[in-house]
Amino acid sequence: MIAITRQNLVLTSSFLLGVGLIINPAQSALISSLGFALLSYSVTYVLIPRLGPSFVKIGLFGKDLSKKNNPVLPETMGAISAIVYLFTMYFFIPFMFYKYLVTITSGGGNRDEGLELTDPVLSSSNSTDIPVISASRLFPHNKLATYLSAILCLQSMFVLGVADDLFDIRWRNKFFLPAIASIPLLIVYYVDFGVTKVMVPAILQVYLGETVDLGLLYYGYMAAVAIFCTNCINIYAGVNGLEVGQSIVIALLILANDTLYLINPGHPAIESHLFSMYLLLPFLGVSFALLRYNWWPAKCFVGDTYCYFAGMVFAVVGILGHFSKTLLLFFIPQIFNFVYSVPQLFGLVVCPRHRMPRFNAKTGLLEVSRADLVAPPAKWLDFLLRILAKLRLIAIWTKPDDDKVIVQVSNMTAINLCLVNMGPLREDRLTMVLMAVQLFTGVVAIVLRHSLASVIFGKDNL
Amino acid sequence: MIAITRQNLVLTSSFLLGVGLIINPAQSALISSLGFALLSYSVTYVLIPRLGPSFVKIGLFGKDLSKKNNPVLPETMGAISAIVYLFTMYFFIPFMFYKYLVTITSGGGNRDEGLELTDPVLSSSNSTDIPVISASRLFPHNKLATYLSAILCLQSMFVLGVADDLFDIRWRNKFFLPAIASIPLLIVYYVDFGVTKVMVPAILQVYLGETVDLGLLYYGYMAAVAIFCTNCINIYAGVNGLEVGQSIVIALLILANDTLYLINPGHPAIESHLFSMYLLLPFLGVSFALLRYNWWPAKCFVGDTYCYFAGMVFAVVGILGHFSKTLLLFFIPQIFNFVYSVPQLFGLVVCPRHRMPRFNAKTGLLEVSRADLVAPPAKWLDFLLRILAKLRLIAIWTKPDDDKVIVQVSNMTAINLCLVNMGPLREDRLTMVLMAVQLFTGVVAIVLRHSLASVIFGKDNL
Repeated sequence: MIAITRQNLVLTSSFLLGVGLIINPAQSALISSLGFALLSYSVTYVLIPRLGPSFVKIGLFGKDLSKKNNPVLPETMGAISAIVYLFTMYFFIPFMFYKYLVTITSGGGNRDEGLELTDPVLSSSNSTDIPVISASRLFPHNKLATYLSAILCLQSMFVLGVADDLFDIRWRNKFFLPAIASIPLLIVYYVDFGVTKVMVPAILQVYLGETVDLGLLYYGYMAAVAIFCTNCINIYAGVNGLEVGQSIVIALLILANDTLYLINPGHPAIESHLFSMYLLLPFLGVSFALLRYNWWPAKCFVGDTYCYFAGMVFAVVGILGHFSKTLLLFFIPQIFNFVYSVPQLFGLVVCPRHRMPRFNAKTGLLEVSRADLVAPPAKWLDFLLRILAKLRLIAIWTKPDDDKVIVQVSNMTAINLCLVNMGPLREDRLTMVLMAVQLFTGVVAIVLRHSLASVIFGKDNL
Repeated sequence: MIAITRQNLVLTSSFLLGVGLIINPAQSALISSLGFALLSYSVTYVLIPRLGPSFVKIGLFGKDLSKKNNPVLPETMGAISAIVYLFTMYFFIPFMFYKYLVTITSGGGNRDEGLELTDPVLSSSNSTDIPVISASRLFPHNKLATYLSAILCLQSMFVLGVADDLFDIRWRNKFFLPAIASIPLLIVYYVDFGVTKVMVPAILQVYLGETVDLGLLYYGYMAAVAIFCTNCINIYAGVNGLEVGQSIVIALLILANDTLYLINPGHPAIESHLFSMYLLLPFLGVSFALLRYNWWPAKCFVGDTYCYFAGMVFAVVGILGHFSKTLLLFFIPQIFNFVYSVPQLFGLVVCPRHRMPRFNAKTGLLEVSRADLVAPPAKWLDFLLRILAKLRLIAIWTKPDDDKVIVQVSNMTAINLCLVNMGPLREDRLTMVLMAVQLFTGVVAIVLRHSLASVIFGKDNL
C-alpha cells in the first residue's frame, strides 16, 4: 500500500505531467524533453533510496566527516542519475525526430522517402548546388549520428567514472579519463563534421583573417574542454550538495544562454541551442532528484561518477553547440578555485591530503580548515601571506606567544575563502552561498559576453 | 627491460602487423578491421594480467572448484575484453568511412559536399525519383548512425553485465537485462530504418503474400533475439574456456556465412555482411586474448559480463545484418542444452544449485555430476529415465542393494551429456569436444540453410 504523502503526490504528479508533456499534441521536441526531465526526476527519486543499500554492500560507501558520529553513507549514487539519464536520452530519440517520422506511413524501407523539409540546419548544411528536392526528402541522419555520439561519449564517461569510484584510479591517470571518454565524440566530429575553424578577435583579423583553421589542434582543444569541465567540478567538492548544486546552476545558466538564441527566430544557431536544451533538461531532472538526497544532511554521496558525468554533459553541449568558449564563462568559480589552489597544489605552501572545511561538533558549523606550516615561511612568503590575509583572501594564524611567526594558513580553496570572509557556516548555508556566487558570476558573464563580443570579435552572434 | 620471449615476439608482431593492416595502402575497411583485430588482441593480452589483481582487490574473484586447492582467480575479466573492443570500434570509425573522407580537402563544413557514390546500400536506399547527383554527394550518415547504435547497445550491455557481476542481480531480473540493453538499437532501428517485414515460407505465401509486416511484434522479436543469444551463452558455461570458446566458434561460423555473400560480387546484402565482419573481427581479437588466460588451467574467469557481451555482439550482427533467423542455426548446442535442461529447470527432476561436472581430485578428471532424488521417482518417470539411460542421453544410479530404485541421475546439461558418453575427461579436452560439436553443427547448419532455404522460401538469398 502506497501512502498518500506530499512526497508521493509530487512524484506521481511529476510523473504524470512528464508523460503528458512527452506526448504533447503540439509535437514539440522541446516540450517532450521537458516531459522527460520530469519523468527522469521521479524515476531517479524513487530508485536512489532503493538501490543505496546494494551499493553499500559491495563497498561503495563513505563516511560523512562533517557530521556527528561520521555516519556511513552510500557512495557513487550519481551512477543512478547517470543511468536514468542515459536511458531517458534513448527514449527521447523518436520524439526528437518526431516531425520526420509522422510523414512515414508504415515500415518498409529507409526513412529517406516522403519527408518534408522543416529543419533549418539540414537545409543550410546542403550546399546550394544540390537540388532542393533531395534535401526535402532526407531524414537528418547527421543529426542522429551527432546525438548518438554525444550519448556514447557520456556513456563512456559514466563507465570510466564508475571504474574510478570502484578502483580508486591514481590522480595523474584519472585526470585524463575525460579525454579518453571524449574519443567517440571527437571521432564522429571528425568523420561527420570536421569544422575546425575558429573566429579570430577583431584586432588580429588583419593578420589572420576572420577565421583560422586549427586543424588537429582543434581536437586537442575539444579534449581539453572535456578534461577541464569534468575535473573542475570534481575538484570543487567536499560539502554536501555542492557537486550537484554547482552543476544545476551551470546547467541553468547554459539554458538561459540557449533561450537568448531561441527567442531570436530564424537565428542560424537555433538548432545547436535546441540540441543543448535537449541534453540539459533531463540532466536537470536527474540532478534535482540526486540533490534531494545529497543536500545537507546528506543521505548519500554522489561519487566521482557524477562529477565526471555532469562535466561531460557540459563539455558535449559546448562542443557540439559550438559555444565552448562561452561555456567556460560559466565556470568562473571553478576556474578561480583552481587558480587560488595553485600555491598549495604546486607546493609553495604545504598541502594536506584533505582540504575540506573543518567540522566543529560543538557548534555544528563548518570552519576554515588550516594547513600547518612545517617551518616558518621565507621572508617574502611571510610578507605575501600577510598581505593576502589583510585582503581577506586567506586567514593566517601566528604562534600564540610570537605573532611574528606564521604557523598556520587557511587551505586555499574557494570553499574556505567563503568561510574566511563569512565566518563559520552551517553546511547547507555554505553550499547555498557558493551556489549563489556561481549564479551571480554566470549571469554577469552572460551579460558581458553578449555586450563585449561585438567589441572583441567585431560582432556578437546573437 | 622487456625480455625477448616467444610471447613478447608474438605480441609485438601482432601489434605491428595490426598497425600495418589498419593503414593498408588499399584503404580497404575490411583489412583495417583485421588490423584492429590484431591490435585489440595484443592490447587485451597485455592488460588482463596487469588489471587482474585490481579486480580481486574490489571483490571480483571466484574459486575454481575444478582444481586442487580451489585457487582464487580474478572474475569478470571479460570486462577488459569488452572495454578494449568498444574503444577499438571507436577508432575503427574513420577507417570504415575512409573512402568518404579522402575526397574532402580540409575541414570547413558538413561532409555532405564533394563525395563520390561508391556505396551500394546508400544508392539503393534512395528512392528512384531523387536525382542521382544528391545521393552522389552524401556521406552515409545512416550507416554511421546504425554503427553508433550498435556500439551504444553493446556498451549498454557491458554496463548492465558489470552491474550483474557487481550486484549479483536475481535470475528473474537478469534474464531481461539484454532486452534493456537493446533499447538504443531498437529505437534507432525504429527511427532510422523501420523495416518490420519478414519473408513468408513458400507454402504459406498463398495466404499471407511473399512478406508479412510484423509491425511492433518485430521489435519484440528483436529483443527476444538479444535475450536468447546472451542467456544461451551465459547458461552454457562452467568449464574453463567454454564461454569464450563457444563464442569464438560462433563468431567464426558467422564470418564463414558472411564470406559466402562476400565472394558473390554485386550481391545486395554484401554491405550487411561486411558490417557483420567489421563487428566480429575485433571481437575475435579480444576473445582470443581472453581465451589465453581462461583456457585450462584458467588464470581468470570471464564473468557474466563477457557472456552477455558476446551474445549481444551476435544479436546486433544478426539484427542489423537481417539474418537473425540464420543466426539461430549457429546456436544449436546452446538450444539443445536449454531443451535438455527443461526437466530439471521445471522441477520434473530435482535440480541442484550447481550442475557443473564433478572434479575428481585423484584422477584430475571431470566426471558426470549427479542430482540426488529425494524420493523414488513415479512409475512413468522411472520408466522414462531408464529409457533415456539406455539411449545414453542420461546416466542413472540405483540403490546399491536394489537396482529397482533410482537414487541419482546425471544433471541434464550438454556438458554432462558429453561426459556420460565419453567418460571422465580432463577439463581442456571436454571444452575442446564441446567446441568441436559447436563447429560441426554450425557447418552442417550453414550447408543445410543454403540448400534448404530455396525449398522453404521459394528461393535462397545467396
